[in-house]
Amino acid sequence: MYLGAIEAGGTKFVCAIGDHDGNIKERVTFPTTTPEETMRRVVEFFRPYPLEAIGIGSFGPVDLRRDSATYGYITSTPKQQWVNFNFVGEMKRHFSVPIGFDTDVNAAALGERRWGAAKGLQSCIYITVGTGIGVGAIVEGNLLHGLMHPEMGHILVRRHPQDTFAGVCPYHGDCLEGMASGPAIEKRWGKKGAELADRKEVWELEAFYLAQAIANYILILSPEKVIIGGGVMKQEQLLPNIRHHVMEFLNGYVQHEVILQKMDEYIVLPGLGDNAGVCGALALAKQALDE
Amino acid sequence: MYLGAIEAGGTKFVCAIGDHDGNIKERVTFPTTTPEETMRRVVEFFRPYPLEAIGIGSFGPVDLRRDSATYGYITSTPKQQWVNFNFVGEMKRHFSVPIGFDTDVNAAALGERRWGAAKGLQSCIYITVGTGIGVGAIVEGNLLHGLMHPEMGHILVRRHPQDTFAGVCPYHGDCLEGMASGPAIEKRWGKKGAELADRKEVWELEAFYLAQAIANYILILSPEKVIIGGGVMKQEQLLPNIRHHVMEFLNGYVQHEVILQKMDEYIVLPGLGDNAGVCGALALAKQALDE
Repeated sequence: MYLGAIEAGGTKFVCAIGDHDGNIKERVTFPTTTPEETMRRVVEFFRPYPLEAIGIGSFGPVDLRRDSATYGYITSTPKQQWVNFNFVGEMKRHFSVPIGFDTDVNAAALGERRWGAAKGLQSCIYITVGTGIGVGAIVEGNLLHGLMHPEMGHILVRRHPQDTFAGVCPYHGDCLEGMASGPAIEKRWGKKGAELADRKEVWELEAFYLAQAIANYILILSPEKVIIGGGVMKQEQLLPNIRHHVMEFLNGYVQHEVILQKMDEYIVLPGLGDNAGVCGALALAKQALDE
Repeated sequence: MYLGAIEAGGTKFVCAIGDHDGNIKERVTFPTTTPEETMRRVVEFFRPYPLEAIGIGSFGPVDLRRDSATYGYITSTPKQQWVNFNFVGEMKRHFSVPIGFDTDVNAAALGERRWGAAKGLQSCIYITVGTGIGVGAIVEGNLLHGLMHPEMGHILVRRHPQDTFAGVCPYHGDCLEGMASGPAIEKRWGKKGAELADRKEVWELEAFYLAQAIANYILILSPEKVIIGGGVMKQEQLLPNIRHHVMEFLNGYVQHEVILQKMDEYIVLPGLGDNAGVCGALALAKQALDE
């Protein structure tokens, strides 16, 4: 018997078959188009396999309140065709197994906690910096939910004194995502991040914003591990720069040896690499089975 | 049988005897002086009563890791005489009952959840704005801890464009506490907040900083209720101003009816009034008994 995993992103879907130890047996990737076409490919991929459970880590916002009439829906996404799409309902129509459902970043945090960089810990955050900025969190051993799910990519940040860029967030302009997402880099500098690898000032400014957000996440959530991935983090100069600025922003206030002396082990890349999301969806499937 | 409660603040201690429903039977308040003198008064107050358990909500930082050699200690406080004070150990020396221990603000959050404004909810935050700014949180039904406990009063905030005040935080200068605590108000305007009640610009600026922090707490923790108390909140013009600015900062991004339409029920004063802290300590005692 297998577990099914769906990493449902705004630009692409990754579907995979895996086992209870997080090993991926088969995987397929296809672009996110209409719900009809995309879901047809999802169902076709999973149909041949005897599945025990399926986990979905989805782009959002999503409705995660179990007692809600729209539980399992993608809700107010800017992707018009997916607004109010009943993701869990559609999967249940085809597969009579437990379905785990959460945000893509909460899934990745769960995967990293089960098999990756936060293995054995009771808390962690998983940050992805790419087309958008998303953050998932585990607190006291549980995925973090509340009124809704967190939307930490949109926190307000302090502007760098030399920075006049307006930001790209349609809601907030210069929130974190508005200042530091992939599209923000491209609009600010006129080129994609991958083409700016040798421009030190690009990554210095990027680190300033990401580190500021991470310092606030640390002060608010006190996670035992900070994991940061996504396309923008492929720039290798970025992570040491972020660690440096986080230390500067906290300025010795959080007196824990991990933060004062072991920053290299505290803020890290995903242990599961690019598989954090899809392994996280496997972990959601496993969790749904145990419920 | 009774429960004992200690609200241990940096300037005063409140000790109380109460029951399992949060009713206070007796209470006493005295100034925080040396640990020896202060603890002598604590022990004297409780000694006559048959106690089942004692709860302590303490100023900090405190060590809350159960597996730590210094669990139950006040750690690196600026109050020199209290540095590395073994609070739980000292109480255990005198009373052979379960001792609950957490930060003062986590205690208040717990009290508000059990008997106050967040009754029946799975999540809330409790903010106090006074000599310092502290925040306690309940997430997924549990008090929030991680690497340490949160220190949300020190998050970095965006400076108001017309504000040139340097801030009073010895670690960060112009973090939230540095810009918006009682001492920050006094230093910025040359008078205590209570003497500035009719100065509209004072409370407009105060609301700007507090609302910004609350917007970030909402984006990061997604609490079902935001409770805000402390001496500074006695200024009645402040709360409506804060709600207004939180709506502005979020700008429709968090699409939940409570935030879009019911802000007056979402950001509220403590349901327990000035008893939030001491009732919270009672709730910690109750929790210690149930463990």
